[in-house]
Amino acid sequence: MCQPPAVALSLTLSVLAESPTASAALVVPHSPVGEHTDLAAVREFARHCDVVTFDHEHVPADVLAALEADGIPLHPSPAALVHAQDKLAMRRRLTELGLPCPRWAQARTAQEVEEFAAQVGWPIVVKAPRGGYDGKGVQVCRSLAEVEPWLSGVGEAGLVDGLLLEEAVDFTRELAVMVARSPSGQAAAWPVAQTVQTDGVCTEVLVPAPDLDEDLAVAAVEGALRIAGELGVTGVMAMELFEVAGPSGAGTADGSAGSAYLVNELAMRPHNSGHWTIDGSVTSQFEQHLRAVLDLPLGDPSTRAPWTVMGNVLGGEHPDLYPTYRHLMARDPGLKIHLYGKGVRPGRKLGHVTVFGGDGSAGSLAELRERARHAADYLQGVIDE
Amino acid sequence: MCQPPAVALSLTLSVLAESPTASAALVVPHSPVGEHTDLAAVREFARHCDVVTFDHEHVPADVLAALEADGIPLHPSPAALVHAQDKLAMRRRLTELGLPCPRWAQARTAQEVEEFAAQVGWPIVVKAPRGGYDGKGVQVCRSLAEVEPWLSGVGEAGLVDGLLLEEAVDFTRELAVMVARSPSGQAAAWPVAQTVQTDGVCTEVLVPAPDLDEDLAVAAVEGALRIAGELGVTGVMAMELFEVAGPSGAGTADGSAGSAYLVNELAMRPHNSGHWTIDGSVTSQFEQHLRAVLDLPLGDPSTRAPWTVMGNVLGGEHPDLYPTYRHLMARDPGLKIHLYGKGVRPGRKLGHVTVFGGDGSAGSLAELRERARHAADYLQGVIDE
Repeated sequence: MCQPPAVALSLTLSVLAESPTASAALVVPHSPVGEHTDLAAVREFARHCDVVTFDHEHVPADVLAALEADGIPLHPSPAALVHAQDKLAMRRRLTELGLPCPRWAQARTAQEVEEFAAQVGWPIVVKAPRGGYDGKGVQVCRSLAEVEPWLSGVGEAGLVDGLLLEEAVDFTRELAVMVARSPSGQAAAWPVAQTVQTDGVCTEVLVPAPDLDEDLAVAAVEGALRIAGELGVTGVMAMELFEVAGPSGAGTADGSAGSAYLVNELAMRPHNSGHWTIDGSVTSQFEQHLRAVLDLPLGDPSTRAPWTVMGNVLGGEHPDLYPTYRHLMARDPGLKIHLYGKGVRPGRKLGHVTVFGGDGSAGSLAELRERARHAADYLQGVIDE
Repeated sequence: MCQPPAVALSLTLSVLAESPTASAALVVPHSPVGEHTDLAAVREFARHCDVVTFDHEHVPADVLAALEADGIPLHPSPAALVHAQDKLAMRRRLTELGLPCPRWAQARTAQEVEEFAAQVGWPIVVKAPRGGYDGKGVQVCRSLAEVEPWLSGVGEAGLVDGLLLEEAVDFTRELAVMVARSPSGQAAAWPVAQTVQTDGVCTEVLVPAPDLDEDLAVAAVEGALRIAGELGVTGVMAMELFEVAGPSGAGTADGSAGSAYLVNELAMRPHNSGHWTIDGSVTSQFEQHLRAVLDLPLGDPSTRAPWTVMGNVLGGEHPDLYPTYRHLMARDPGLKIHLYGKGVRPGRKLGHVTVFGGDGSAGSLAELRERARHAADYLQGVIDE
């Protein structure tokens, strides 16, 4: 999805692709095949690049360190990226900065788990500090017995530093703030979005977050910009957060109407909660990411319509989406369909749809949500009419 | 510019490119090099395609006929495309259909030129029926002496059937209507645009055409849709037209306020006068062209802002546009910059810029025009601040 703005700005992308049929390799002419864990492959790739950036967080620290030692400009830098790679590092740093987080602890033993649960109460959320995504590497545990399998994995991949334990937050809803920051320190933020998760996977994004308290919106954007600045983030960063009733523990993020936020996760790349920007913002997150990592001036992040709604398309019944999208195009000429050229696997994110419009009335937002939901469900094969 | 919507819709483009550094070849992975006049090259290319379409009008009739005989789906078809390739064929057909055209004649001899000039008065417009673009192959002639060099070329390339003579229309302004039509016959039209030409080259496009008489707008769009239907056009078609005071000769295209239109040129492909649609319409002309040639349902051609203004960027002083666009990005974060990856040559179309916004007031349109003009002039090196 970086290729369209790269085409417009006449920037040449190269992709180190996991296979010749990877989504990005299908649309970017220079896409050598190689593993992001293979230092020799990454190094050979990187020496042809003016700037290297990432579309996931899983490049190992030793590979990043070697590139940095080679003098390759990496955006975001490894020192910033570690906070998106390692949830323990993120929690530690955000707590130092006084940003509102769920209560958390690092644990390697049953005793440490029990001590934390005694403090916050069961259930607790257990997370693998490294390697998780889309709800993988996360489990709500109601008893020590449910944590035991995790404890037996401590020391292994993703759990080398133990487990991250978090209180199970009684949130009102989930929100996301997308910001961008350039090496020169220029920053820009899109409006706060509401994200709707189903089984731990984001299924819907509403922009702007409906009925969001204005002070809370300001506090959340300020928080995200502060994180980006303090951590030295370059490129686009997503801050996923919980909206909770009442003031937050840290006291820095209160909304005037008695709501507050807690930071859930960080991602340092264009993120699913920002896909709406392709059709809904003057500058998409993909264009902004390119501008930011190249230290070009950032673009206007304003919305282009009162409401934008994105629905994720997950793999379902249809092995081929083409016949279904033909139907949707006929049904809804204003629907923007984005497919990623991936093979269909149940639950896999295969694409997204976006609709926009509205005059600010709730009815209008409801119509947009219904259009997006219908389109996503139809593409997935959940419905057939 | 078809690559971004192809990426979104997960359609695989292939381009028969004139060189490995052609604009399209830089951004489309499968871009074999070959000449559009080389039947063997075109044939080898086309047999891997589900549908073949065109980004210019210059593929020779014998090449098209051979592909058609091979059973390759061509959109637009050669039978339709000839009206964009051959201005005499176009004038003949539109006149048969009763569509309003400038008075015209075919001429091979000085006597025929003088007879036509006696009828419409000097100056007259002399056109090469084939091969012209961007003001090339067109000359306003004030006397027979100025037509003589044309007459000596009759029978040669572009002039095999003689000259096309047209009256020099005393137009109020130039307009353009972009429409799309699919093989199933579905059609869609964008709002009428005003095009501003400088030295025969389009420099600015305003959408919608300001202060356009509503009846004239309807008549022009109806005319373009009728042409697309009667000629069997598939894909996107541009109808360039003149707005003139008073009723037209054909009497079919009158606006209520005493204005009328005359058809100037046709193009059967995404066209410069529709580049504004990338940022200014729900469905861009490039997405619509892909949908149309694949016989997919067409997208919504609505505008996304009260005003959209596009400025063409022509080659000028700067050999490298990159340092200049950095400045423009800083100056105007809402400016959408599109560069085509072409080497700079004076007068060559290297890219375009688009701005949008406004609340319908003339002041606001003036501001948008100033922003687009500044950006285009700065990129061209006409101004340096």
